[in-house]
Amino acid sequence: MIKITLPDGSVKEVQQGTTVLEVAKSISEGLARNVLSAQFNGQTVETSTPLNQDGSLVLFTWKDKEGKKAFWHSSSHVMAQALQELFPGVKLTIGPAIENGFYYDVDFGEHKISDADFPKIEKRMLEIARGKHDFSLREVSKQNALDFYKKEQNPFKVELIENLEDGDITFCDHDNFTDLCRGGHIPNTGNIKAVKIMNVAGAYWRGDENKPQLTRVYGISFPKQKDLKEYLALLEEAKKRDHRKLGKELQLFTFSQKVGQGLPLWLPKGAALRQRLEDFLKRAQHKAGYESVVTPHIGQKELYETSGHYAKYGEDSFQPILTPHENEEFLLKPMNCPHHCEIYNASAWSYRDLPKRFAEFGTVYRYEQSGELHGLTRVRGFTQDDAHIFCTPDQLDQEFKNVIDLVLYVFGSLGFEDFTAQVSLRDPENKEKYIGSDENWEKAEQAIINAAKEKGLNYVIETGEAAFYGPKLDFMVKDALGRSWQLGTIQVDYNLPERFDLTYKGSDNEEHRPVMIHRAPFGSMERFVAILLEHTAGNFPLWLMPQQAIILSLSEKYEKYTKKVLNLLENHEIRSALDNRSETMGKKIREAEMNKIPYMLIIGEQEELNGTVSVRKHGGDDLGEMTIEDFAQLISKEINASLKTFEV
Amino acid sequence: MIKITLPDGSVKEVQQGTTVLEVAKSISEGLARNVLSAQFNGQTVETSTPLNQDGSLVLFTWKDKEGKKAFWHSSSHVMAQALQELFPGVKLTIGPAIENGFYYDVDFGEHKISDADFPKIEKRMLEIARGKHDFSLREVSKQNALDFYKKEQNPFKVELIENLEDGDITFCDHDNFTDLCRGGHIPNTGNIKAVKIMNVAGAYWRGDENKPQLTRVYGISFPKQKDLKEYLALLEEAKKRDHRKLGKELQLFTFSQKVGQGLPLWLPKGAALRQRLEDFLKRAQHKAGYESVVTPHIGQKELYETSGHYAKYGEDSFQPILTPHENEEFLLKPMNCPHHCEIYNASAWSYRDLPKRFAEFGTVYRYEQSGELHGLTRVRGFTQDDAHIFCTPDQLDQEFKNVIDLVLYVFGSLGFEDFTAQVSLRDPENKEKYIGSDENWEKAEQAIINAAKEKGLNYVIETGEAAFYGPKLDFMVKDALGRSWQLGTIQVDYNLPERFDLTYKGSDNEEHRPVMIHRAPFGSMERFVAILLEHTAGNFPLWLMPQQAIILSLSEKYEKYTKKVLNLLENHEIRSALDNRSETMGKKIREAEMNKIPYMLIIGEQEELNGTVSVRKHGGDDLGEMTIEDFAQLISKEINASLKTFEV
Repeated sequence: MIKITLPDGSVKEVQQGTTVLEVAKSISEGLARNVLSAQFNGQTVETSTPLNQDGSLVLFTWKDKEGKKAFWHSSSHVMAQALQELFPGVKLTIGPAIENGFYYDVDFGEHKISDADFPKIEKRMLEIARGKHDFSLREVSKQNALDFYKKEQNPFKVELIENLEDGDITFCDHDNFTDLCRGGHIPNTGNIKAVKIMNVAGAYWRGDENKPQLTRVYGISFPKQKDLKEYLALLEEAKKRDHRKLGKELQLFTFSQKVGQGLPLWLPKGAALRQRLEDFLKRAQHKAGYESVVTPHIGQKELYETSGHYAKYGEDSFQPILTPHENEEFLLKPMNCPHHCEIYNASAWSYRDLPKRFAEFGTVYRYEQSGELHGLTRVRGFTQDDAHIFCTPDQLDQEFKNVIDLVLYVFGSLGFEDFTAQVSLRDPENKEKYIGSDENWEKAEQAIINAAKEKGLNYVIETGEAAFYGPKLDFMVKDALGRSWQLGTIQVDYNLPERFDLTYKGSDNEEHRPVMIHRAPFGSMERFVAILLEHTAGNFPLWLMPQQAIILSLSEKYEKYTKKVLNLLENHEIRSALDNRSETMGKKIREAEMNKIPYMLIIGEQEELNGTVSVRKHGGDDLGEMTIEDFAQLISKEINASLKTFEV
Repeated sequence: MIKITLPDGSVKEVQQGTTVLEVAKSISEGLARNVLSAQFNGQTVETSTPLNQDGSLVLFTWKDKEGKKAFWHSSSHVMAQALQELFPGVKLTIGPAIENGFYYDVDFGEHKISDADFPKIEKRMLEIARGKHDFSLREVSKQNALDFYKKEQNPFKVELIENLEDGDITFCDHDNFTDLCRGGHIPNTGNIKAVKIMNVAGAYWRGDENKPQLTRVYGISFPKQKDLKEYLALLEEAKKRDHRKLGKELQLFTFSQKVGQGLPLWLPKGAALRQRLEDFLKRAQHKAGYESVVTPHIGQKELYETSGHYAKYGEDSFQPILTPHENEEFLLKPMNCPHHCEIYNASAWSYRDLPKRFAEFGTVYRYEQSGELHGLTRVRGFTQDDAHIFCTPDQLDQEFKNVIDLVLYVFGSLGFEDFTAQVSLRDPENKEKYIGSDENWEKAEQAIINAAKEKGLNYVIETGEAAFYGPKLDFMVKDALGRSWQLGTIQVDYNLPERFDLTYKGSDNEEHRPVMIHRAPFGSMERFVAILLEHTAGNFPLWLMPQQAIILSLSEKYEKYTKKVLNLLENHEIRSALDNRSETMGKKIREAEMNKIPYMLIIGEQEELNGTVSVRKHGGDDLGEMTIEDFAQLISKEINASLKTFEV
């Protein structure tokens, strides 16, 4: 008998040689049906692997990342089999699971594969799946492995095997198909109930453009047909909400080849939106005792040598800017903290002056390879809603709570209701990896945990995930499509106060080191606007909308009245536009819908007569005829419902 | 007889050989007494020069720049004589007139000169001046000139003479002193009634640090003792108002060696001031139909090759920023116009869409040698209150007027009452130097002149002063010390629309080129704040003040009441602070005065009892006891008097 420890700490005694799947079955039939993969003593094993010693076993289902990985990895074997059967002579190379699904890089030889081939590949994959073929792993000698692929005339697999050690090589068999494989499979092909070939793309062997070009076939699979349906619907919705598409349609931002990749140009509507977000946060920060500062977008190399950033990131960053005639080197600033430390250092502080909270919408520049750039979420220049709090260790607790309040206020005002928090602490086994005294670390970690508790956050603690310079709190926010985004990191820092020799005079009249908090509720204006666009599909909270209302006039006859209405709306500070083109009402409404304008105010003879407007909500709701005063009240009520005043 | 034409067009007939001074005398004795120098047929001449042919004569007095130049140039001869007498063996090099006074670079040999020597130099200079010695110019041969200075063992003058052509060399004599000199002197030393040696500094011969170090002696002189007194008082006042001094005292901005020279860090009070200025202009611009945009602080080199800036300024600028792994070159943006052109180009425009007015508080970076840097007026990074108007040629007239309105609104709200304008047109004799069609130039020049006339500006026209790409209008603003600052340039541009291939579809359905207007009422936030500081000595208009009121409490007893008052002030949106330290009232008032806080609200027993405050104005005026409501009305009245709403 051997002892198997499960994640909940319970121990099961089973006969030596019992397989993973059998252990699952001994727990429950349901679990056995759902188990997809497993780890034994930290190593990935097959579900068919017999257990021969004591150890701890983790079983994964579809709910787990590891379960999905095994599912998609196994599905790529099935796709490979289907491709080999449908396109005889193709040469398979590698086929891993990815974040959503899997791919296989294939040399199709004289075959050409296109969208038209996808249905037959899917059909054959489902046939194979229905065969409920077990995946079974077996060790092969290097020579046998080489012989196998040489016979198949596959130079790619031969190259892979040549780089492996004899004794380390395994093949995986299912049905009549064999692949070179390290393991990590689902029990059998029968788990796969739904498959979809997504697309094909070119890819070089080993990512090297000097090597042969292959075809990368992307697929995805699911344990239920319903899951595939939902996934495709989500993809469809995500495509509609793609911030790059919406940003263009709503004329928020653009890019220019001449200005450079990853450097957004904010068009008037986008700039106004961004300004509104900034003003919103500025008002709250002002209440919370922050003070704005303004610092340049460059700094001498020495500044980043002092902060330690140059040693760490210098080579992979935008390179130094030289000056003519003088021996100086500047860097584009990749973050605002060194500048804020210099502002702190420009005055002498006493403990009575602290905390100091320096805030700046600071634009920073970080080099990203052009292939990594993506709309507004991966850019080379972005504006952080940055602030640095300099406080005494005793003030950390309260300051941390205040920052959480601010972050929750931001989330609440912008419709992010669903989020969790992660508290990252240092690894107590490896204290030497971290800077700062034990006492300060304990104080800071306790401050964060207390704050998270007191603010009622749904949080997990991750030990060993702290940065070397301090513990932190991250928020993971779910958007309307269920996708998670990291937003609003709050980070404690003992490093920069040390490096910049920041001090304050304590009540004991001695010099002490302040603690620093870095925080950015939005993260960056660019990324936040992108997430907000995808979360709201462009239907921002009313207070944020570039245009809140548009007057649609039934005919040019009512020009005088429409202008009067426009004026009244402006007096009520309702951001409005007027469409009195001689187009059909249908067309005007369609365009207003496309432009996501929340309220359409329709004006015809009756409205002019009654001194009213007929209000149509974005999406189609007819709110009927009302006076401008009533409409203004309706707007102000809706705004007040989402945009509360920040209270400290 | 010869014919002498005077600037007013009148012609005087005089005998050949009549001197300049005699011509002056023939006009009026007063003029003859005041004339300091002259130009004949465009050439500088001595007042003693006999006129031998027909020509036009311009006479200069102390009121003219040229008159001052001759005065100070002549004074440097007198100083040189005094130095040679007082410090035998000194070697004179060069001694020109400068903007305020003159200097002489001197090799003092074993002598050391210090402030203590200044009075005796001044005394000797005045003695020479009282001698009323004529300045007389004479030609000398190169050999004689060399012999003269070799005998004096002056290698500097010898080097200067060696670089001159024989026949081009003149000496100037007065009293028993002779100097190598090109001419341009006042009639005699008697014109000099007041002198002041200002300071000494080190200077390299010919500005080359590898050459001998000399001592530069700075002096200034005046035709009246009173002028010197006024000048010294002005200097004293300017020193008090130096924006670098005030900026430090009022905690507006700082510099950091680590961040780099010429890169200001705006401290909280300065950042708030700047924000208020930006908001003020943004509100007016919004009314005037401007739209904000946001663009990055770098652009690809290609962007500036397209604009032409790289070819023109590239070598003397911050050098290109390279990226790792990729073949890209970026430049720090030295101006915002290329980015705004790319924003214009991101959409297709019809004549009905124009004018488009893109505004941005855009931070730009321009390399200046470190020796040229000065506080906030000469920096390496600054934020322009920039905007670019893209309009049809027909709209130029109205747009130009609108911009003038905006500039005048800015000047009016900030207390700049005294200004003139300069209209710079192209040189009609050299049309080929300019880009753009004759028709457009005429339209644009006429538009500017019409606008200047219609807006009642006090303007002068300068022909040939236009940029090659378009005509412009500059404002010259006088500050409280009578110093002139160029502020608020409005520039028409035909060049960038061409280079960026900007177009709009006209009513004829053809593509046309828009005209561009560059404009920045403040110029830059940095320079404007510096000028405003020196103009107001830190006593900004009330609406702009970082702190408008401070509560000074007579004792800690009144803490509860002072906090109530602070709250009330905040409700009235009066930016206030509270000083309830246990310091004497005298000290609190002194500090509030130094911090330029406009209103001090004194609170003691009586005020608490009556529910009032006793109001003391900055500078000392006692406004008596009043309620907070009355005080708030007083404040709001004062603000409304200076800060009008911008009307379009």
